[in-house]
This record gives sequence, structure tokens and C-alpha cells, in this order.
Amino acid sequence: MKNASIKDVAKEAGVSKATVSYVLNDTPHQSISEETAARVREAVKKLDYVPNLNARSLSSRKTKLIGVVIPQTEPGREFLFSNPFYGDLLSSAEYAARRNGYHLLLSGSESNQSYMSIARNRGVDGIIIVGAYPTKWLDELHELSIPVVLVDTYVKDPVYHTIGINDRLGGRMATEYLIKNGHRSIAFVCGQIEDQGVVQKRYQGYRDALEGAGIKVKEEHIYSGNISFEYAQAVAQEMLKRGKKETAAFVSADILGMGLIKGLRRLNLRVPRDLSIVGFDDVYLAKMCDPSLTTVHQDIAAKGTTAVQFILDALSGEPGKQEKILPIELVERESVQKI
Amino acid sequence: MKNASIKDVAKEAGVSKATVSYVLNDTPHQSISEETAARVREAVKKLDYVPNLNARSLSSRKTKLIGVVIPQTEPGREFLFSNPFYGDLLSSAEYAARRNGYHLLLSGSESNQSYMSIARNRGVDGIIIVGAYPTKWLDELHELSIPVVLVDTYVKDPVYHTIGINDRLGGRMATEYLIKNGHRSIAFVCGQIEDQGVVQKRYQGYRDALEGAGIKVKEEHIYSGNISFEYAQAVAQEMLKRGKKETAAFVSADILGMGLIKGLRRLNLRVPRDLSIVGFDDVYLAKMCDPSLTTVHQDIAAKGTTAVQFILDALSGEPGKQEKILPIELVERESVQKI
Repeated sequence: MKNASIKDVAKEAGVSKATVSYVLNDTPHQSISEETAARVREAVKKLDYVPNLNARSLSSRKTKLIGVVIPQTEPGREFLFSNPFYGDLLSSAEYAARRNGYHLLLSGSESNQSYMSIARNRGVDGIIIVGAYPTKWLDELHELSIPVVLVDTYVKDPVYHTIGINDRLGGRMATEYLIKNGHRSIAFVCGQIEDQGVVQKRYQGYRDALEGAGIKVKEEHIYSGNISFEYAQAVAQEMLKRGKKETAAFVSADILGMGLIKGLRRLNLRVPRDLSIVGFDDVYLAKMCDPSLTTVHQDIAAKGTTAVQFILDALSGEPGKQEKILPIELVERESVQKI
Repeated sequence: MKNASIKDVAKEAGVSKATVSYVLNDTPHQSISEETAARVREAVKKLDYVPNLNARSLSSRKTKLIGVVIPQTEPGREFLFSNPFYGDLLSSAEYAARRNGYHLLLSGSESNQSYMSIARNRGVDGIIIVGAYPTKWLDELHELSIPVVLVDTYVKDPVYHTIGINDRLGGRMATEYLIKNGHRSIAFVCGQIEDQGVVQKRYQGYRDALEGAGIKVKEEHIYSGNISFEYAQAVAQEMLKRGKKETAAFVSADILGMGLIKGLRRLNLRVPRDLSIVGFDDVYLAKMCDPSLTTVHQDIAAKGTTAVQFILDALSGEPGKQEKILPIELVERESVQKI
């Protein structure tokens, strides 16, 4: 069966091609009656007509594509999802987009690649950028005049929509919880501390809590590498080498907590007996590991869904910049003990 | 800065727009000298010209998009990645595509949705379909005349490229390993057993091994639900309710092994002391859980990379159907004990 063309639909409905196009694109047009519109829709259905969105995008400037840029921490490696946070986020964004007739154009970013080229090349209707990037790169995107949503960055921008959580508060909550449980020698384990990034804020929260309790922040308790299971395993060894002065650790991502549990176990140390751990994110794995992780819960699915919603709102004429700070809470599980 | 147009490039290089287009699209054309082509490329560079691929797709029929369809096991739920296998696969496919100037158009499939509409709508250059689907749906895709790669299905098709492993052999290897370790009462835990799907073959392998050892296959040892951590937790309870006659389990996906470990632990049962487990896939989590999973390793990254490569090969004129069966091996970790 040959695909029906817009011409076939026009013929079937007894209208012009332009009329079919107006109806399909929901373009307001005074001279088209509801009856005519119904006839066009019927013809579309009868002929199983599927508009070619690539062709359509040239006239209506709508591609029904949303670009999603997800950071790649180590350049040249193929591990978009080594932090399960991104998989969880992408799942919910994909679902929200699909429900609204959109598709996601997925791109891992590499340190030196301009997002501009992705967006310009593809003619996406909107773009969701996850993580913190240099202001210069983000500024370039202004030229595109399409809605942009920044997820998880503290870069200030007058136009772009933003979605995030109070990371500094989260860091403080995690650390205060450990202090409340009697810990005073608390490690902070994280990836790179990027300027304007979420880890920087979580680190500030960690410092806030320690200082609030009159505990000195010590450089030797900070372990900053990359957000991976493997790095956290290595941290366990490093801790032991340094004489393991810590009784607890706050890790900036759950996956680091999982690596730490495993790394310690290889050294015959147990969580929480030998080290208490509080994670961050509450990825779906946090409750799967053993012991399950006490962690700062954030609604990752809502981040993805809201990001798509902001794009759709903007495309349907919602004016102005939208901002959303999602709530967080500490979830108590098995990885912390009182001392 | 206004985006440079193809006209600007033509002017800068002192050639026609058609010549610029030929050079950019690598269209063979006898009258364009290497010198002219070099001049065009220089102008492109100087003006930072980025071709609009949506426009280009209309003439060259190349969108530089590869559609990826990933199954959604429970309709209407947003859990594209509840099985980490898909995240691992997608990561490697995304990386391979990006390296070649392609992007992935991601779509979860819903049971009743025709893939046809995705592909027709978007004008993708090729499509990668993961999992087993009704032959009727796949047949419809033939009309599109674009390369299609089927990953992990046993549906026979004369044209589509296929990538998979020997799932039946894998199921046999896993089960024989348990038998070798003294187990004779072995559960099989899986998701839906779809016709022509990988689980069906792994199940056949399980039966092969039992029958080969003269052990009767018992219906009560088969637990078939869905591929999720939660289902496997529930299986642990169900096993106990049935009097826990099994000393071991072969699970059709690692994530089920993780759920089983956790579910048993809640009932104060330990792996491998109370139940030995062999998983399947060797997702990156398999070595993270505690105990780490003995499992049938497959090269998930190679599946994603090869799928993209098959599309690229076909687009660059490689004739004929390609098939690849990737090797598997049993990886011994901590979740099996000898009895």
C-alpha cells in the first residue's frame, strides 16, 4: 500500500490541500467550518494518512522533537547512564513527551561540543539541558529562540526555564542527620565540584551543617573524583589508607554510596557498623542495595515530566519564564547507625 | 550573529548553491574539482555554517536520525529502564551514533502502537527494534524501505538485519552450572514468556539442562511475571509459601536476581546459603549487588554498537542482510554455592 498523500486527503474530503494543512496543524482560519474540518479528519482516518513531520516542520516550524542533552562526565566513554539518575530522568521525560505526541532526540554531550550545533542542526522545538555548563555555551542558545529548560544548574539566565531542588538544604539535611546520630567525623564523597553545579551546593550544605554543630571542616575528609561505582570503591581503600578516621560519609549521589558499601565490604568492613552512609537522589537502586540506602529523596520522575511540560507550555504560548523547585526529604533506611 | 545560509557559503566560495550542496552531501559529481570542494569547505568553516538537517532531509532523504524502539512491558508506566539492560544498550548505541554524526530518536513502544507511524512520521534513516513483536507489525515496516535491525528476537525475516545471542545455550549453561554444583530443585524466574522472544529460548535451555541430567521439569518451579525488582521480591515470598522446595534459581534477567536476593533477605534467608542464583545479561549492576551475581555474560555494549553499525553499513550501500550472534560466557561470582 502506497502512503496516502495530502493530495489524496484533499481529494477525498473535497477541499484544497491548504485546507487540509490548516486543519491538521490546528491553524486558526476563519473560513473553515467545523463541518469541513470534520470531513478532513474523516478522510485522514479513512486513508490512514500520516503527515511527514520533517516536511511539515519547514512550514509550521514544528518538528515535534525535544532535544535532551545529558552530560557525559568522562569524555569519550560510552556511559550515559553510569549514574542511574539519568536513566530515571529520561524515562519520565520520554513518557511525558510521547503522551503529547513528541519524541526525544537524545544526545550525550561531550566537554567540547557546542549544544548549539545539535539544536540548530535538528530544528528541535525545545531543548532540555541537564547539568551545569559554561554560561557562554548557554548564551549561544538564545539565538535559536526556542524554549530551553535547564535542569539542575545554578547558572542564572533571564529567559530559560529552570527546574531543580534546594541542593544546599539537601546537603545540610543529610549531614545534620549524621550529626544527630552522633557522628562528628564525616566524609564528603563526590564527583567533580563544578561551578554553579548541584554538587557545589550539596557541599556547601555539608559545610553548613558541620559549622552549625561547631565541627571543623577538614580537607582530608573530602573525596572528589567522578560519579561512578568504581570511584567510590577506590575511596573505600583510600579511607583505610588514611587510617579511616571517619565514622560516616555523605555521598553526593546514591551510586557512590553503593560503591562505597561494596568497596568497604571487600576490606571486611560493614555498613553501617563500620561506616554510616547517607546518599542523595533516591534512585530506584537505593532501596535495592544491601543495606538499603538512607538518602535524600528527590522526585526524579517529576523533574523529567515538568521539564517536558515547561517546553509544551512555552510552545502553546504560555508567556514568561517558569521556575520550579521540587521538594526533598530524607528517607531513613538501613545505612546509618547511631554511635 | 545571524546563522549563515547556504547562499552565504556559495557567495564566499564563489560557486553556486547547488555546488555547495553537492559538496556537503558528498554527492558524486564529475564537474566539481577537489580544489572547488576545498574552497567550499573553507567557506563553511569560516562562516560557521551549520546545515539545517530537516531541510536537507527533503532533498537527500537523509535525516541522520536512527529510531530506537524499546519495549515497555507494562503499558502506561514510565519505566523504560526498570531493566538496566536497556540503559546499557542505549548508552552504547547513542555513543556509536553520535560518533558518526547521527542522533537517536528514542521511543518506548506501547503494546498497541504501530511502529510504522513512528518511522513514517519522522523519516528516520533506519530503525533499531529491541525485543520480540508480532510479525504483522514488523511486516508493515517493509514498506518504508529503510534499514531495520532487530535486536533480541527470533522472528524470522528475509530482509531485516538481526543481532542476538544464543539464548537457549545461555539458559542451558546457567542451569547446567547449578546442576554441576549439586542442585536438582531449580526454579526458573522470568517475565512474560513471549513467542519468539529471548525468554522463551532461555526457558528451553533450562529444560534442556534439566532433561539432560534426568531431572523432571516441574510446573511449580516456574515463576513467570514481569521483569522487575518488585516482582522478584514477591517471588521470594511465594517460594516460601509453597514450602521452598528449591535450592537454586535461574533468573532470566539480572534485575530479577537482585530482587530475589532482597526479597529473601527480608524473610531472613540468605543467598547463596539458602538459595543459589544464576542471572542473565551481566548488566553493570550484577557486580554491584551483594552477593554479586553469578550470571551469563553477554556483551550488551556490542549489541548497541553493532546495531548502529548495521544501519550505517546499509545506508552506505552495503548490500544484503547482516546477522550477528554475539558470544556469551558464564561469569562466576558469589551467588552460587555447592551443595
